[in-house]
Amino acid sequence: MLVSGRRLLTALLQARKGPFQPSRDMRLVQFQAPHLVGPHLGLESGNGEGIIDLNTYDPTLPKTMIQFLEEGEATLSVARRAQAAQLPVLPWSEVTLLAPVTRPDKVVCVGMNYVDHCKEQNVPVPKEPIIFSKFSSSIVGPYDEIVLPPDSKEVDWEVELAVVIGKKGKHIKATDALAYVAGFTVAHDVSARDWQMRRNGRQWLLGKTFDTFCPLGPALVTRDSIADPHNLKIYCRVNGQVVQNSNTNQMVFKTEELIAWVSRFVTLYPGDVILTGTPPGVGVFRKPPVFLQKGDEVQCEIEELGVIINKVV
Amino acid sequence: MLVSGRRLLTALLQARKGPFQPSRDMRLVQFQAPHLVGPHLGLESGNGEGIIDLNTYDPTLPKTMIQFLEEGEATLSVARRAQAAQLPVLPWSEVTLLAPVTRPDKVVCVGMNYVDHCKEQNVPVPKEPIIFSKFSSSIVGPYDEIVLPPDSKEVDWEVELAVVIGKKGKHIKATDALAYVAGFTVAHDVSARDWQMRRNGRQWLLGKTFDTFCPLGPALVTRDSIADPHNLKIYCRVNGQVVQNSNTNQMVFKTEELIAWVSRFVTLYPGDVILTGTPPGVGVFRKPPVFLQKGDEVQCEIEELGVIINKVV
Repeated sequence: MLVSGRRLLTALLQARKGPFQPSRDMRLVQFQAPHLVGPHLGLESGNGEGIIDLNTYDPTLPKTMIQFLEEGEATLSVARRAQAAQLPVLPWSEVTLLAPVTRPDKVVCVGMNYVDHCKEQNVPVPKEPIIFSKFSSSIVGPYDEIVLPPDSKEVDWEVELAVVIGKKGKHIKATDALAYVAGFTVAHDVSARDWQMRRNGRQWLLGKTFDTFCPLGPALVTRDSIADPHNLKIYCRVNGQVVQNSNTNQMVFKTEELIAWVSRFVTLYPGDVILTGTPPGVGVFRKPPVFLQKGDEVQCEIEELGVIINKVV
Repeated sequence: MLVSGRRLLTALLQARKGPFQPSRDMRLVQFQAPHLVGPHLGLESGNGEGIIDLNTYDPTLPKTMIQFLEEGEATLSVARRAQAAQLPVLPWSEVTLLAPVTRPDKVVCVGMNYVDHCKEQNVPVPKEPIIFSKFSSSIVGPYDEIVLPPDSKEVDWEVELAVVIGKKGKHIKATDALAYVAGFTVAHDVSARDWQMRRNGRQWLLGKTFDTFCPLGPALVTRDSIADPHNLKIYCRVNGQVVQNSNTNQMVFKTEELIAWVSRFVTLYPGDVILTGTPPGVGVFRKPPVFLQKGDEVQCEIEELGVIINKVV
């Protein structure tokens, strides 16, 4: 708890020092606190002082984000009322943030989806999205630790914009797709390059899905809180040094096209997460390559969404 | 319901005509019936006449297989008591079987895991398991329809032995692995070869994970009901013609080794499903290749486990 609290404080200071403030509109979280039996749903308070406990405000609300999203507009309007009311705020020091979504049906990932990341690899921009996945067991919270597996020597960073699905759908048209988005959050697509690129018959899954390889958070920022998800500054810092620095306007396939594409194959469910690809600056393409080491601290930050900070252990 | 009932009858007749009888030990199912509000957990009756409704026998039991498995020995002993008691049996004509596991955290798949299937492809037997995945949204019931996606012209069959995990674990030793197995079932790893082999940057996921591409069932047959999971005849028939005919003794990596391998990377959870690979005889390696067409009926059968029958529409 102490370590987690300190990391949270660093995150908040970082966000305040940064070039932009996170949006203060509708920021939904899953959290734990010592006085609670299990995880609760919450809302970041408007003044940034802490968390409003939605389950205390309305005990009939579900306690997981996925169930909350499944109930659609009904639960969202409760959250809006809670936001407008003057409710007690749990200070940051008393809460531990969890990933805003846990155990979704799918964590869909998109490869080579930044124009500038394709240039870095000297490969053509793909004509169709390249889709792979992580198991949802890889998801951890915004300030949790990334555990270096003894089986890999090449663990790399990848900051990504994550889309959280809010409504079940299949064969969704790109023009309708934003209606299926609950909101956005920051993801770290941690990647073991040895396993991704040279082992497992070149199927990327294993290198992408070690436990703790999908930090998410800090909040699910609802769709209507973000003016333009495809014009957000996106950064990754390792031990304070900027290693990725781009903008989501570099995405080859935008949120709408990705939802249309993926839903040609599979039914999307509330809580499904789509990691939309990473900008340039990953370790494996540096000369010489650089990989994460025990003790490193990785910060993934996206304008309006916030920052997640994960120590490598 | 009519179509489903007819298919179920065919399945039962098939099982009786077949060279072997399914084991009558502990066969757990998920099912629906017109008089029930939602899915229930059940048990195939000892005399093969139908289903014992476990939730009616003990209303405190969970209604999903995953929750049932999560509760471990406690719920299993209730099922054993139900099996020993003289309880009313719902006849097959009144029930619709669902997949024995729905919405697991993971559907892990293993590529090229039959010695004879490697020979068929003229590729060496792999030195390590090759792991890929399906999204759990692809799971359907044992007599449900496989929907041919308009996006593929090369949909192929693959009968597989599926292992269902019963206990959470990480870094499981092969010598301990069977203790983590709840049981076994039959899987059909339906595969769109065009998408698996030539599209999506050669990542297999999309070709494997179209909706309805993972029929499972008919029952979760508990581990102790199966004398030797690695000595079971395994068949696939298309429109009655045998297209795959092998034995699980041809598996390169057995259940224990697969669990040890996968749990090096990820935490396994109760309900996770591992599809252990397919024997030779798939359509894509025939000369000329053969693919599934609308109206085809595929039967996947494994000795002691039973048969699943899925019509292609």
